[in-house]
Amino acid sequence: MTPAPAHVAGAGMIRFGKYPADVTLESMAVRAAHAAMDDAGATASQVDAVYVGHVFGGPVAGQRIAVQLGLDGLPVSNHENYCASGATAIREAWTALAAGLHDVALVIGVEKMTDRVAGGVRPDPGDLDAAMGFVMAAGHGMSARRYMADHGATRAQIAAVAVKNHAHSVHNPYAQYQRPVSLEEVLGARPIAEPLGLLDCSPISDGAAALILCTPRGLARLGIGGTTPRVLGCALVSGSVQLGTDDLNAEDVSRRAAEQAWELTGVGPEDIDLVEMHDCFTIAEIVRLEGIGLIPRGEGARWTELGHTRIGGKLPVNASGGLLSRGHPVGATGVAQACELTWQLREQAAGRQVDGARVGLAYCKGGTVSGTDGGSVTTLVISR
Amino acid sequence: MTPAPAHVAGAGMIRFGKYPADVTLESMAVRAAHAAMDDAGATASQVDAVYVGHVFGGPVAGQRIAVQLGLDGLPVSNHENYCASGATAIREAWTALAAGLHDVALVIGVEKMTDRVAGGVRPDPGDLDAAMGFVMAAGHGMSARRYMADHGATRAQIAAVAVKNHAHSVHNPYAQYQRPVSLEEVLGARPIAEPLGLLDCSPISDGAAALILCTPRGLARLGIGGTTPRVLGCALVSGSVQLGTDDLNAEDVSRRAAEQAWELTGVGPEDIDLVEMHDCFTIAEIVRLEGIGLIPRGEGARWTELGHTRIGGKLPVNASGGLLSRGHPVGATGVAQACELTWQLREQAAGRQVDGARVGLAYCKGGTVSGTDGGSVTTLVISR
Repeated sequence: MTPAPAHVAGAGMIRFGKYPADVTLESMAVRAAHAAMDDAGATASQVDAVYVGHVFGGPVAGQRIAVQLGLDGLPVSNHENYCASGATAIREAWTALAAGLHDVALVIGVEKMTDRVAGGVRPDPGDLDAAMGFVMAAGHGMSARRYMADHGATRAQIAAVAVKNHAHSVHNPYAQYQRPVSLEEVLGARPIAEPLGLLDCSPISDGAAALILCTPRGLARLGIGGTTPRVLGCALVSGSVQLGTDDLNAEDVSRRAAEQAWELTGVGPEDIDLVEMHDCFTIAEIVRLEGIGLIPRGEGARWTELGHTRIGGKLPVNASGGLLSRGHPVGATGVAQACELTWQLREQAAGRQVDGARVGLAYCKGGTVSGTDGGSVTTLVISR
Repeated sequence: MTPAPAHVAGAGMIRFGKYPADVTLESMAVRAAHAAMDDAGATASQVDAVYVGHVFGGPVAGQRIAVQLGLDGLPVSNHENYCASGATAIREAWTALAAGLHDVALVIGVEKMTDRVAGGVRPDPGDLDAAMGFVMAAGHGMSARRYMADHGATRAQIAAVAVKNHAHSVHNPYAQYQRPVSLEEVLGARPIAEPLGLLDCSPISDGAAALILCTPRGLARLGIGGTTPRVLGCALVSGSVQLGTDDLNAEDVSRRAAEQAWELTGVGPEDIDLVEMHDCFTIAEIVRLEGIGLIPRGEGARWTELGHTRIGGKLPVNASGGLLSRGHPVGATGVAQACELTWQLREQAAGRQVDGARVGLAYCKGGTVSGTDGGSVTTLVISR
């Protein structure tokens, strides 16, 4: 049985970036929540429940946020799946609406990275692979080398992902970076994990994003007529990458997440008009698009170079700027992706609009790629 | 609309206590999960999804556990609501089953407190009340003083909660403490926050507990016929206690949680045969039982002294030993309460059996009672 879709009645976020210490996690979440509530025309008394995704906010961060929103009597819950935390909160809210538990849910994704993880997200102390140097950037560097060797891709084709995503977010007022970067800048940036350089990596970011999700009865409560974008479903799968397997870029976990999304939503890969893809590193955008079956295996780098994944191309990817350029406050990312899809499907994306978009897919991956941790992948489908 | 009940196909836990450093959070969770799966006759391949409640396990702890269980391909999500984290995971799993998303869910509550919070759970650095001395024990000490003044209760009546709960867990092989304590021992224990002494406070504990929850289709998959206990519903409300309000023991949040439980489940207070109550401190058991309306306001201390809340009394409370004596590994507690209700409703509780129990209520409270944090309360109803 497929749970019923959830209507997206409102979407709102704050600009991602590095905020000073006196801008709290709670205040960022409150601003994003108010933006989503205003967008939906919803008042606090019309909200039934609050679902919060975050990683580093500390115990009951969602409850502290709810108090500041005047929502402290409601059901509030905190959901963590590393970089897929925001998407997981959406999934839980969608499920609760489908079950008939609530009619109007506020979903918030939030992270204050600069306070908590100033030098970057550190691996778990028990992660032996990371202790030996296999940190996240190193894994993606290996992925890029393997990809280049297997498919004859060039360094410049991989770098073109960053050029594209930065070009997109010139038109996104919520993006951390809003200026174009050239191919030369990407290729000439400080090396991080070769062949990847600084501009191949998503930044440390603070930010918050929020959605109002509704049942049909919830829409009526808010006085919303006409059509709204609908969350058709959100698949969640986990999986670990075993080092020493034949193929570092097999992306089995992505393939399974996509298959479950198609099964859950009745939508197929041919229906997807735009993608918000978890491009924590340039190469990740490429191998994950291939993993979910939207680009043939080994073709992603060439597609990028040819402009197929640009706005106006045959499969626009990260019209928002993606993690690379919109920024990546980890718990907020999945909700920001859903905001972007909502605005695109409503044709409110102005200079970055994907014309005629009817169905969008948002993909998040949380957790490391090491052998003992299982990463989680979410595939969220929103339709016009 | 009330979501459909979830069948409890299996329950399992490990003994709560203080485990050495080489017993990991993951290994404790795996042992509890295997116990629940064995109880349900379920193999790994029959499980659809994993819901994990914990506070201090770190990012993607649930995924690390799932890898060790051979369940790493599945949807895995982590849920945090402080001491109500385990109950929140049950709520999310119940909702997903009711929505038709899954048929067999493994719910795990786990915490390794001795590694992470050796000296006790510390308040948030930003909690000004706590910084001024209003830590959790102090709040409950004030609650006890207020209760004694308002209702003419005696110190010994409050201490009787600890005597009762320790007497119960003599018969609970999973309890951290399995020997009786006398009233003199409770009254003579080292003062913590007067009038409360050491034996009025729940201990630092490690532990894990797990459930297998099923739809009717899930039961059929596991080959389970006949009747099973059913999770009728789990309410979740939040609320903050404002210092300086007239009544420290008003327990408005508990009242609302109970009302929502009755509304969700169709069960009323008169139907409740036994309670697993969040007795993080002796006085908390009393004021929360009154708050949820199962004991008249101001009568709880006398009821305890008279034995009404003992096994064999008119409202048996914490037959398991409760947090005071079974122990309180925070993320595990809500799931352990559900395990106890399951065993009681199946009449498998041996020396601590509540005869003829048909409906049980489990109550958790997570978060602090300070003015800016909103605590969360869960009220879970399981019926035979």
